[in-house]
Amino acid sequence: MAKNDIEKIRHSLSHLMSMAVQELYPQVGLGVGPVIENGFYQDYDLPEVINPEILPKLEKRIRELIKKDIKFEQHNMDFDKALELYKNDPYKTELINDLKEAGEKKVGFYKSDDFDNLCAGPHVDSAKEINPEAFKLTHIAGAYWRGDEKNKMLTRIYGLAFDSKEELDEYLKNQEEAKKRDHRKLGKELDLFHIDDVVGLGLPLWHPKGALLWRIIEDFWYKEHLKNGYDLVRSPHIGNRTLWETSGHWGFYNKSMYPPMEAGQTLEERQQNKEAENSEEYLLKPMNCPFHVEIYKNNPKSYRDLPLRWAECGTVYRFEKKGELSGLIRVRGFTQDDAHIVCTKDQVKDELKKVIDFILFIYKSFGFDIEKVKVYLSLRDPKNKDKYAGDDAGWEFTENILREIAKDKKLNFKEELGEAAFYGPKLDFKVEDALGREWQCSTLQFDFNLPERFDMVFTNNEGKEEKPYMLHRALFGSFERFIGLLIEHYAGAFPLWLSPVQVKVIPVRENHNAYAQEVFDLLKENSIRAEVDLADENLGKKVRQAKNEKIPYWIVLGDKEVESKEVTVESRSLSEAKSGDTDAGSAAGLMSLEKFLELLQKEIQEKR
Amino acid sequence: MAKNDIEKIRHSLSHLMSMAVQELYPQVGLGVGPVIENGFYQDYDLPEVINPEILPKLEKRIRELIKKDIKFEQHNMDFDKALELYKNDPYKTELINDLKEAGEKKVGFYKSDDFDNLCAGPHVDSAKEINPEAFKLTHIAGAYWRGDEKNKMLTRIYGLAFDSKEELDEYLKNQEEAKKRDHRKLGKELDLFHIDDVVGLGLPLWHPKGALLWRIIEDFWYKEHLKNGYDLVRSPHIGNRTLWETSGHWGFYNKSMYPPMEAGQTLEERQQNKEAENSEEYLLKPMNCPFHVEIYKNNPKSYRDLPLRWAECGTVYRFEKKGELSGLIRVRGFTQDDAHIVCTKDQVKDELKKVIDFILFIYKSFGFDIEKVKVYLSLRDPKNKDKYAGDDAGWEFTENILREIAKDKKLNFKEELGEAAFYGPKLDFKVEDALGREWQCSTLQFDFNLPERFDMVFTNNEGKEEKPYMLHRALFGSFERFIGLLIEHYAGAFPLWLSPVQVKVIPVRENHNAYAQEVFDLLKENSIRAEVDLADENLGKKVRQAKNEKIPYWIVLGDKEVESKEVTVESRSLSEAKSGDTDAGSAAGLMSLEKFLELLQKEIQEKR
Repeated sequence: MAKNDIEKIRHSLSHLMSMAVQELYPQVGLGVGPVIENGFYQDYDLPEVINPEILPKLEKRIRELIKKDIKFEQHNMDFDKALELYKNDPYKTELINDLKEAGEKKVGFYKSDDFDNLCAGPHVDSAKEINPEAFKLTHIAGAYWRGDEKNKMLTRIYGLAFDSKEELDEYLKNQEEAKKRDHRKLGKELDLFHIDDVVGLGLPLWHPKGALLWRIIEDFWYKEHLKNGYDLVRSPHIGNRTLWETSGHWGFYNKSMYPPMEAGQTLEERQQNKEAENSEEYLLKPMNCPFHVEIYKNNPKSYRDLPLRWAECGTVYRFEKKGELSGLIRVRGFTQDDAHIVCTKDQVKDELKKVIDFILFIYKSFGFDIEKVKVYLSLRDPKNKDKYAGDDAGWEFTENILREIAKDKKLNFKEELGEAAFYGPKLDFKVEDALGREWQCSTLQFDFNLPERFDMVFTNNEGKEEKPYMLHRALFGSFERFIGLLIEHYAGAFPLWLSPVQVKVIPVRENHNAYAQEVFDLLKENSIRAEVDLADENLGKKVRQAKNEKIPYWIVLGDKEVESKEVTVESRSLSEAKSGDTDAGSAAGLMSLEKFLELLQKEIQEKR
Repeated sequence: MAKNDIEKIRHSLSHLMSMAVQELYPQVGLGVGPVIENGFYQDYDLPEVINPEILPKLEKRIRELIKKDIKFEQHNMDFDKALELYKNDPYKTELINDLKEAGEKKVGFYKSDDFDNLCAGPHVDSAKEINPEAFKLTHIAGAYWRGDEKNKMLTRIYGLAFDSKEELDEYLKNQEEAKKRDHRKLGKELDLFHIDDVVGLGLPLWHPKGALLWRIIEDFWYKEHLKNGYDLVRSPHIGNRTLWETSGHWGFYNKSMYPPMEAGQTLEERQQNKEAENSEEYLLKPMNCPFHVEIYKNNPKSYRDLPLRWAECGTVYRFEKKGELSGLIRVRGFTQDDAHIVCTKDQVKDELKKVIDFILFIYKSFGFDIEKVKVYLSLRDPKNKDKYAGDDAGWEFTENILREIAKDKKLNFKEELGEAAFYGPKLDFKVEDALGREWQCSTLQFDFNLPERFDMVFTNNEGKEEKPYMLHRALFGSFERFIGLLIEHYAGAFPLWLSPVQVKVIPVRENHNAYAQEVFDLLKENSIRAEVDLADENLGKKVRQAKNEKIPYWIVLGDKEVESKEVTVESRSLSEAKSGDTDAGSAAGLMSLEKFLELLQKEIQEKR
């Protein structure tokens, strides 16, 4: 069904809901009632507080109205008549006066039975078009009239609506699943990280399992970067204010930066707001780039040195507003998996191709479907060329080459005019998680600004100074965000190669502890991240705990295993399969430790 | 010879030098002239600027005076007579008046021929005791009288003196060698790092080879920590000011900290020194500990959870004075290889032993002689018990156990009374480098302060709350300092396992490039850090460059090698051995690539 049709359904449901509400509260005032993603809402000025128990009653009445095949008839009305109709409703009156002021000649209405409502539409013609099983009223919230907290608080009722019951059920199931997968919830349950008022908002503290997960990812990242011809660099977290003035960050960006530290000022000078005699002003870095540029500039560069590919997992700090902070997704301190590529014009195409291949390789490695990756090509606004750094030739060259390569690589891409940063055009990449939600990850951006501002040059093969092309790129975007995504994508049940604990060794009783310790030591020697559970608890509780910790494998060791010098392997995926959740297929059962190690190594190798 | 004797010789040489200077400048004023490490100096008020050419002349004259067997005769003088003697010398006059004010009855002199000098001694009896070949005047510098820049600038002449010519030569050779090994010089020559005024003093920027060296070390560090039962944690670089107030860092330590960032203040508020409406004050961390404590406190802890060993390579920032900054040795931003151990009293001993074993293992791995490690046990001042955190019982227990373990482990240790931090006793470890210089590295410290201030507890096996023991420890101290040490210890010629580039592939001519590329790819596939030099240069120049870059191995590929599908290996140590510097014994000559890879893997494995 076309988007337009489902929007008509959603909007019409909001009218039917208002009819039902008006039956219960004839004097109800009607605020706004737009269509939103997946559904609709409507604001009401009610004489009393209502609670969620009303929702099934309203749903029932809406279904009856649908069955009655209520029609939606459009008609227009003169302003005077409309104002007369709504003389007891200050909200509608305000809206009508607004339309009048905006120069409208008449106001649009939709009439359904006795319910005649000021409304621009569109609606279905008849309620029969609405599937009575494919909508659901979900919750009630307070909302100020026109979003202004000086106005009266109205009651907002939210609803979901789809074409089919299946779509609704799917959506509700995903919502339920998303709640279970919330990385903040799982972060606590799996003891991965926490964010602490005492320490500072938006500044995650990584607990042992979270920090190990990070290190595993970082390790993979570094190894792959070295394999892919990148060099590493390393820069501090603060820099002289002048550096950020040169880069332009302080000018363009200071609202998102932490304020300067005026060092050299004594505590006394500071308390008395005195100028320091020998002050130096430092800023916490919001970006790594200026440091990489300073490393570039430390030695003269020739065309023989290019391309340079310099990578750093650099932790940057941005002072985001409190209200915008959200778990690991929006933080104030985050580690960009950053790299800068500096190259000649001739090398641009090849470098871009390599980055795109690298991005897709990374997605694949972490279990994302690369067929579902969406790409956005941000171009400059051709009508406002003067607001961009760099010259026309540079922009044309880079925009064209980005488009050309996006086509060559058969990326699912969309061009967005005027969405480029002032410093250059870019490609942004979004991956889809297990619930079909899109997450912003990689970015690949040209920069005409920094090479200009820092006067970056190289000596070309004619011995002349030339400005290089500069690319910023990040594969994950940030470690924090990417780990948040992984937690939700895998619902905390990470694939073996990523699991902080890969195997838990569980002795059945105390007299099996020695063998358990032996098996544990052998696993560790073979570079398997293992834990041994020697607690004085019964087997059932220990196994339950291993499951709760979402550990991929646990091995149970009792008399039989001690005697045969084997291990009984149980697996998370098999245990989930039993409860019907996912396909089984992993190692399980009684086997030699060698065999188990072999299976583990293979699974790790294949990043399953 | 006893220390006392060499000091007499050094002091007497300073008198002989003054006699020689006085012969040239009869009106010379004499400032101070103490014995210093390895030699002596003397300050002079001279009528003209002198240059280093004078030094050999003075040395010659001193040797003549030694040959003349000048005597050093002690005698005392009344103040009046002494003041009369020095009536034209304002420096000596000031010193004599000081002695008078201090309540001395007479002033001591040493007389040698006509040179009668105010001096507390001691001296040799006769110049014959001085070896005329075992001293050297080294350089001239300016120095303010009594170190006060408001006073007159005097001329200071420095000399070295030893018992034997061999000791002097050895010292001079080491000095020469130390200059060559200076990590700032090598850091530039080997393109490892630079420190930049523009970015900020004391904030190193790591270039590709330096950042790779760092990563290799960090990788080893993390792996060994995981093997040794540590968990990783990860914390931000800033925290709320209140966190640092609780920890006590802000109170005790704020002069060494970067000033607070008052975030939430708008730029306008900041410029007008207005209070922000919603300000949050953040401080750059000078230590990692409070964050680890907050992770500890995030969940209740039981005795079953202990010991906890939490490690983090955490970059901290301290605002050291400009004048105290020095290369990588004294910086403002540095990465501590930090860990905190939280345990019960019963676990303390075992944990300490493990840390000491770990420290010695690390020294061995990086090529330091563990027989030469010096350890300092810092104890509290028993006369000022009230200036320390924690109670007597805790101090006695920890001091005794540190002493006991230092003995058990046969450490070469020295007790230092009153040198403990206020928060607990500690062991500090110093290693000796290839030139016999000592470098402060590891530290192992108890902390009674943070568990108190943050109210850290665990539930003991009786279900009661108990305060845990807390240990700070660092193995390297800091990455920056330790890498500085490694550079100087190895003179930049790192052992194979640490070398950023392990093998350079050098084709003889362009028609060997394809084979060179093939060999290079195979090395990379086998995880060897290799470079291939395809530059259009002659072989000699390419080999010279590999040597200058201190690369352990290079392989030269010409017709012979292409034909036999073998490689000709040359090595840094063999090439040095030829010039007589060190023992040879590394892989060299024509061999199969498989054979070469095998030799490399073995050498890497053995950390030679």
